[in-house]
Amino acid sequence: MTQPEPAAVTETAPPPARTSKPTPLSGFPELLPAERLAELQVLDQLRRVFELHGFAPIETRAAEPLEQLLRKGEVDKEVYLLRRLHAAEEETSELGLHFDLTVPFARYVLENAGKLEFPFRRYQIQKVWRGERPQEGRYREFTQADIDVVARDVLPFHHDVEVARVMAEALSSLPVPALTLQVNNRKLIEGYFRGVGAPDPAAVMRVIDRIDKVPAEVVQTMLVDEAGLSAGQAERCVALARISTPDSSFVEQVRALGVTDELLEEGLAELAAVVDGCAGLNGDRFSVVADLRIARGLDYYTGTVFETRLAGFESLGSICSGGRYDALASDGRTSYPGVGISLGVTRMLVPLFARKKLTASRSVPSAVLVALPDEAGRPASERIAQRLRARGVACEVAASPQKYGKQIRYAERRGIPFVWFPADAEAGDSVRDIRTGEQLPADPDGWLPPAEDLHPQIVRPEL
Amino acid sequence: MTQPEPAAVTETAPPPARTSKPTPLSGFPELLPAERLAELQVLDQLRRVFELHGFAPIETRAAEPLEQLLRKGEVDKEVYLLRRLHAAEEETSELGLHFDLTVPFARYVLENAGKLEFPFRRYQIQKVWRGERPQEGRYREFTQADIDVVARDVLPFHHDVEVARVMAEALSSLPVPALTLQVNNRKLIEGYFRGVGAPDPAAVMRVIDRIDKVPAEVVQTMLVDEAGLSAGQAERCVALARISTPDSSFVEQVRALGVTDELLEEGLAELAAVVDGCAGLNGDRFSVVADLRIARGLDYYTGTVFETRLAGFESLGSICSGGRYDALASDGRTSYPGVGISLGVTRMLVPLFARKKLTASRSVPSAVLVALPDEAGRPASERIAQRLRARGVACEVAASPQKYGKQIRYAERRGIPFVWFPADAEAGDSVRDIRTGEQLPADPDGWLPPAEDLHPQIVRPEL
Repeated sequence: MTQPEPAAVTETAPPPARTSKPTPLSGFPELLPAERLAELQVLDQLRRVFELHGFAPIETRAAEPLEQLLRKGEVDKEVYLLRRLHAAEEETSELGLHFDLTVPFARYVLENAGKLEFPFRRYQIQKVWRGERPQEGRYREFTQADIDVVARDVLPFHHDVEVARVMAEALSSLPVPALTLQVNNRKLIEGYFRGVGAPDPAAVMRVIDRIDKVPAEVVQTMLVDEAGLSAGQAERCVALARISTPDSSFVEQVRALGVTDELLEEGLAELAAVVDGCAGLNGDRFSVVADLRIARGLDYYTGTVFETRLAGFESLGSICSGGRYDALASDGRTSYPGVGISLGVTRMLVPLFARKKLTASRSVPSAVLVALPDEAGRPASERIAQRLRARGVACEVAASPQKYGKQIRYAERRGIPFVWFPADAEAGDSVRDIRTGEQLPADPDGWLPPAEDLHPQIVRPEL
Repeated sequence: MTQPEPAAVTETAPPPARTSKPTPLSGFPELLPAERLAELQVLDQLRRVFELHGFAPIETRAAEPLEQLLRKGEVDKEVYLLRRLHAAEEETSELGLHFDLTVPFARYVLENAGKLEFPFRRYQIQKVWRGERPQEGRYREFTQADIDVVARDVLPFHHDVEVARVMAEALSSLPVPALTLQVNNRKLIEGYFRGVGAPDPAAVMRVIDRIDKVPAEVVQTMLVDEAGLSAGQAERCVALARISTPDSSFVEQVRALGVTDELLEEGLAELAAVVDGCAGLNGDRFSVVADLRIARGLDYYTGTVFETRLAGFESLGSICSGGRYDALASDGRTSYPGVGISLGVTRMLVPLFARKKLTASRSVPSAVLVALPDEAGRPASERIAQRLRARGVACEVAASPQKYGKQIRYAERRGIPFVWFPADAEAGDSVRDIRTGEQLPADPDGWLPPAEDLHPQIVRPEL
């Protein structure tokens, strides 16, 4: 023990002296414990589905070299720069916080290419930061949950179906309002615009991308003015964007428009495969649709594209998006194509918390409060608690030996459903469901709460 | 759908064009998938124990106002400042990344005091950042796992026993080399130094705090020169620091030194209660000791103090530390006493990963690779995989219909223990344990792997 000890990085820090109540920072949402318990259930469920499909977890560091973050001129992402308070003057290498999980993942794949097995399936659930102007659904710090499959040189198309299917399965199981996963294919729309005779298919896409924001007749005018289409061509392009089907019947609707093109055919087949691959998951609370409006920005994507709407929260825009890119990363010699999709967890959940549409049934994990007859009885109450914990029942012992009525109210305020009364001279151990008042004899080595009370439950007040 | 859509914060970002292999950033450790699977098992286990004891999860934002982070003149913490790349010139409010979880927790308690139930037990597992010079066990980005109990006005002593017990239970279950939780009590040592007649007990503590770093005779000299003790007093102070017992027998050893003081008695009783409260957990791989050297810095702590050593990694210093503070937070009218302990997860695990002493049995969650006879068979193989997943078996379908020998090697490279062969014209479904070569008929609606193969297992090569 004579080695020099480094500064104690795990030290619990000094208490800050405060004289006034602190206020929230706009854009940096924080949750109360019951909300965090609900969020954790959502994150656990995402992780469970991703892992069932063989996606491996990774985390990347929060900081990347600034030139890496700005490589594509993405200054509009409002990167946060990092600087050490005591940085030496000559310290020049600038770091920024990552604004998504894709740029760091691409860097991780290149850095570790020799140690990874391809195709590499990974999920990644982490905070990201953007210095945007805060508003509902747009935060400066937020959690994303991404899945991607990346390969070396060639990534077969069936992985597009796979990531759609995995995210669809995850989304369909979440305790949120109805979700619609909208799928399209860039080959389909580009091929169609080409088949229509558009001189610049990319210009058509840029206009069509605005179809939700401006009236149809304005779109038609813009297609003529900005994309060089005839009125007839413009009409046929708008007709394509109107197609939306919950199955592969869009293929017949597109064919009925009478446009032929090789790339269009490839896109139709791919999109049909994705929609059919997810078909079994359609229901009241979740649906997958082929939606031929979706263009997903202008660059990068080369095939399948995804967006997702949350019913009643359409103004949030897409809360889960992604697609296929032919070069997720490249080191100059080898390129790494990928397909992925990214769920904005904070973007989806925080508006639900704010509108009291989602929470947990209690603010603590405890299913049981073990009552305390007097302070001398603490070891006995603690032994009961340990016997319950040994069988997976979360519990806590009352903080002080108040009258039992007060201890019951202590449990009530936290939403703890059961209070355990230790044996005394007159009676054996008993447990009371404080919601019904029913109290029954119980054995700490045998009693279990009903399965639905074992862990905090998701509560969805429909206001 | 005519509302303005905010920038799509969930968008999967553009692929960065790269021309060279990126290199790691010193101090920002990243894990390979198998290591991350092992880390997740550790984090899951910590969470499980914390929740069984009723600790509620919270997360706090990564950023705090700089004046909050520097409130105690903690400039040595090497805070990272945040600045938006496009910050307006007049933007003056400075933010920094939190360097621990205690300062943000204190702020969270004050900010939400009206919405929390006290005593409030919370756990918090998050990244923190410090711009320190990187070395083994000292990182610029690392994960901490904290538990604290905080009350309004008064926090009974039994919570000191509680947090010690909960962290001891968590630590004793981790797949790491032997851990020793060292406990002491500031009342005990301060009372003893006072009883010895030290004119400045704090000065004695400052010297004794260095007892692991300098020879005993130097400590004695320093106690005389810097703390104003006589040679006899110095000897008695060093004698106290030499006491270390795995139970409450330290009480008799201290009494044998013949020092009496009221505060000393209070400290002896408290420390004995903490050590006795954890006694049942002592074993080969984990022990709790009363160690009367531990002073835990100079300020803040007012009673119980904790440190923790990892066998074979003593040069890391304490990897899990904390204690009791009479004012975790205060708003001027109300003060919030607390007791807590903080585990340096990255600090503990990354040296183990680096020395190949800890990993997982495979690099993917998948227990089964479902083989693919040909591309046309993909839907059938996918249906088998879905039936296995429905019963909780993580699996993946082979990426391409290579010869079965190649598909088996695909599984081998990832550590997947089983390969499933779909029925064909000649035989029904069968599954092969590729470690033994044993292959048996199997039903996708009934077969389960042995429990130990269901999830990746922790592997601890003893090099």
